[in-house]
Parts: sequence; C-alpha cells; structure tokens
Amino acid sequence: MYFSKIQIRVRYGETDRMGYVYYGNYAEYFEVARVETLRNIGFNYKQLEEQGVMLPVLNYSVKYIRPAFYDDLLTIRTVITKLPTARIHFEYEIYNEKDELINTAETTLVFINRNSNRPCPAPPALLELLKIHF
Amino acid sequence: MYFSKIQIRVRYGETDRMGYVYYGNYAEYFEVARVETLRNIGFNYKQLEEQGVMLPVLNYSVKYIRPAFYDDLLTIRTVITKLPTARIHFEYEIYNEKDELINTAETTLVFINRNSNRPCPAPPALLELLKIHF
Amino acid sequence: MYFSKIQIRVRYGETDRMGYVYYGNYAEYFEVARVETLRNIGFNYKQLEEQGVMLPVLNYSVKYIRPAFYDDLLTIRTVITKLPTARIHFEYEIYNEKDELINTAETTLVFINRNSNRPCPAPPALLELLKIHF
Amino acid sequence: MYFSKIQIRVRYGETDRMGYVYYGNYAEYFEVARVETLRNIGFNYKQLEEQGVMLPVLNYSVKYIRPAFYDDLLTIRTVITKLPTARIHFEYEIYNEKDELINTAETTLVFINRNSNRPCPAPPALLELLKIHF
Repeated sequence: MYFSKIQIRVRYGETDRMGYVYYGNYAEYFEVARVETLRNIGFNYKQLEEQGVMLPVLNYSVKYIRPAFYDDLLTIRTVITKLPTARIHFEYEIYNEKDELINTAETTLVFINRNSNRPCPAPPALLELLKIHF
Repeated sequence: MYFSKIQIRVRYGETDRMGYVYYGNYAEYFEVARVETLRNIGFNYKQLEEQGVMLPVLNYSVKYIRPAFYDDLLTIRTVITKLPTARIHFEYEIYNEKDELINTAETTLVFINRNSNRPCPAPPALLELLKIHF
Repeated sequence: MYFSKIQIRVRYGETDRMGYVYYGNYAEYFEVARVETLRNIGFNYKQLEEQGVMLPVLNYSVKYIRPAFYDDLLTIRTVITKLPTARIHFEYEIYNEKDELINTAETTLVFINRNSNRPCPAPPALLELLKIHF
Repeated sequence: MYFSKIQIRVRYGETDRMGYVYYGNYAEYFEVARVETLRNIGFNYKQLEEQGVMLPVLNYSVKYIRPAFYDDLLTIRTVITKLPTARIHFEYEIYNEKDELINTAETTLVFINRNSNRPCPAPPALLELLKIHF
C-alpha cells in the first residue's frame, strides 16, 4: 500500500452559486492527486503518455459528506491499495483545514497502448517503484 | 419511473489532450440532464432554490465505456427510478450519434432546507408532477 | 459581414459563489458561438482540424457589463466583420432574456498548418462560403 | 507598483485536444494570481467578500503568444500598476519553465458594495498595505 498527501487551494471559479465547490470539480482534484502521488514515488505521468501509454479512467465514484468552500486549503490523501496490473486503483479522502472529511472517492484506470488502442500491463518502471512500498 | 432524453454537443474546452471528453466534465452533463428532466415534467430547479431548498449531490458514480469526442452530439437518457423522499435518485446513460453507449452513471441528491441547513422532504409540487408517471 | 445568433443556457457549474457566471466561463460560450456560426454557413470546424489545420486564439478581450445568472437563456450574436486571411476575427454580444447586454467581446484566431506549425491562409472552402455574405 | 510571482502546474483537464491549455482556462490562473498577490501583501480576498464587498471583473484581455502544455510549471508575474480607487487593475505575464513568454493579460475589477450593489472605494486596509510598495 502506498499513500501520499497533497494540498489544493479552492479557486473561485470552482465554486458554484451555493458557495460550495461544484460537485463535478472534484474529479480534477483527484486527477492532480493521482499525478502528484505518482510523482512522489518518482514516476512521471506525462512521460508515460510520451511513451505511448494512456491511462483513461474506467470507474469513478464519490461520496460527498461536507461541502468545501472558496479558498479552503484542502488535503487529499491518496492510496494505491494494490500493485497495478493492466489496471490501477486509487482511493481518496479530502479533508478541510479543520480536519473534517469532505468526501471519499475511488477511481480505477486502465493502461492503454496508444498504437493498438488496447489494454496493456502497467509499465515495469512503475511496478519497480511501487513494489518498494508493498 | 420517469425517463427523458436530452442532447448535448461536446465543446472544445471539454476535451483533453487525449482528444476525449475529460472524465470530470460529464458531471456537468448529468447536471444539465437532471435540470432538463425536471423542466420536462414542469418543475423548475431554479425556482426550487429561490424557495429556499437546495439539492446538493450525495453520491455520484460513473462507469466509462467509450470515449466521447469533440463536436459529438451526445444523447443523455435520464431515469428517475422511484418517487423522491428527502432524496432523489437519477440514473443516466450517454450515447453517441452511432448509438454507442459512452457511459452510465448514477447520482443521489438530497433536499436541504436552506434556513435549517437540514434535509427536508421533496417539495409536494414535485411529487404531484412525478406521481403521474409512476 | 456575416452574423449569426445562438442560444446557450447557463449551467449550474458555470456559476460562482457570487451567483454570477464565472468571468472565465464566457470564453467557452464564445467558442461555441464561433463553431455554430461556421456551421451555419456550412463549414465544419472539426473537419478543418481533421484536414490538418488548427485555429488557436491569438487575442481575446471581453468587457463585462452585467452579470448572467444560473439558468439564464443567453443569446450570443456573433459577427465575422471581414473576410479571413491567415487570421479570422469574431465579435460577440451576449444578451439575456430581457434583451439586456451582458457583455461584448472580440477574438482573433490564426489558421495554423499542423505539419509546418506555421500560419497558413484561410481554407478556400471557407472563403467561398463566406464571400456570399460580403 | 507592486509585483508578485506565483507558480501553477497545468492540470490534465485544463488541456484541450490540441494538447494546449484551453484558451479559456487562463482566466482561472489569473484569478489565482490576483488572490495570491493580495495574500502576499497581507490582504485576504475571502474576508473582503465576508465584509460585504465583491470584486467582479470589468475588463479582461489576453494576448496568446505560445501554447502551454500539460504538466508545465507556469510562473505568473502579476503587477498592480497603480493604487486602486473604486477599481483595481492587474497586469500579468505567464512564463513556462524555459522562461518563454506564454501570454500577457490585463484585468480591471471594480469594488462593489453588496448591499447597495454599487461601486465603492477600495477598502482602506488594502490601500494601507499597498501604499508601502508605491
């Protein structure tokens, strides 16, 4: 299991007229959390794409518990629960500055070879970097 | 059960560098689908808010099957599967112009009284309009 | 001079905590207005890209006069003021349902050949379609 | 004159199918740049709103010079060129990691008293903090 923490400050344009972070905008926060989690273990997502592997999202679910507000400094805890195969699974929890749980979420993504447009195994380099933590 | 169909054309800014509709942007499509579904039965979501009732999302899950692309004219089928209580549940399917299934999703929302900031029953006016279809 | 009108309904996620359409979201409305204006004269922007020509924005300016609100049905008047060269210029006015002017804007875009990554003349097919209106 | 620098990393969802940061997404970067510029001098924009003053954008213009790409770590230089009156003016330059100029932009915003819905002078507290730098 590998887990990391990142912080994101809520932007004005991410709120809606309720004054809450719009429910659809968390997906981008989780995207940032994934990319930074991988960067933390030494793996660059952009390079993955440059090597011809894409990583689209297969499943995404989120349970909203409390609203987040403009200018909140949110902490996102991201967990990679198991070693990836052709798929990689992330779990997330977002907390506000009072350490209250804002929401929990999960995503499953699939490694796709750009040429064949078919699923492919997780890159060996990523597995090497992750294995240390499992 | 009440079901309705709406169409949304994919905007350029909604695509990402894979050329796909960004996975986070579907939430806004489902939002539009909910609002138009309610409008179709004669219920105006904006007026609901003006009457002091908010309808934040509690749960959202989506299963991505195929990508959608720039300029695609998508059809969103929205179903209200049961009469709302303090909660209302929507199920969605998005199809492209070839009638291929892009993704399926579900959301549960909760009626919140703005003054008390607590859940409240679905407005009687909405129930009246929906009952005809159940 | 060619001018066209389109309508866009404001989505919930496009508002901010002031209750206004977020100032940054109009750019996407103008994008839709451009694409639909071209479609109205029989020209498909997506096909342009498929033929290896991109049309990035060079300049964008907007003057905000009144806010637009959630669920407003906005009318965007788009004008192509002169025949394009390697550049194409659009002017916009957005009106709300009371016919009040929301904002005015301008964009200049440049035709770019994807292979050379350099500016190129407007496609002859587009010029043919536009000339009728000038 | 007061100037500050902030950094923003480009998110995946902010790119479009050209692979560029979508032209409409820079507005949000400039918003963040404004808020962090004010925070740097000790002024909190959120508190301004809580005191009943809003700061909507009146004018926004941007000149796009080079595209920015996914995962770029952008540097935004923000300048407050003169002391605010009922209006405040910001100028921006965005640079990529190679120190290449991506674009330049300007915004003028107006202080609005929420109760009267009319322009009002810049808050004295903000003027005090800015005067030191002029």
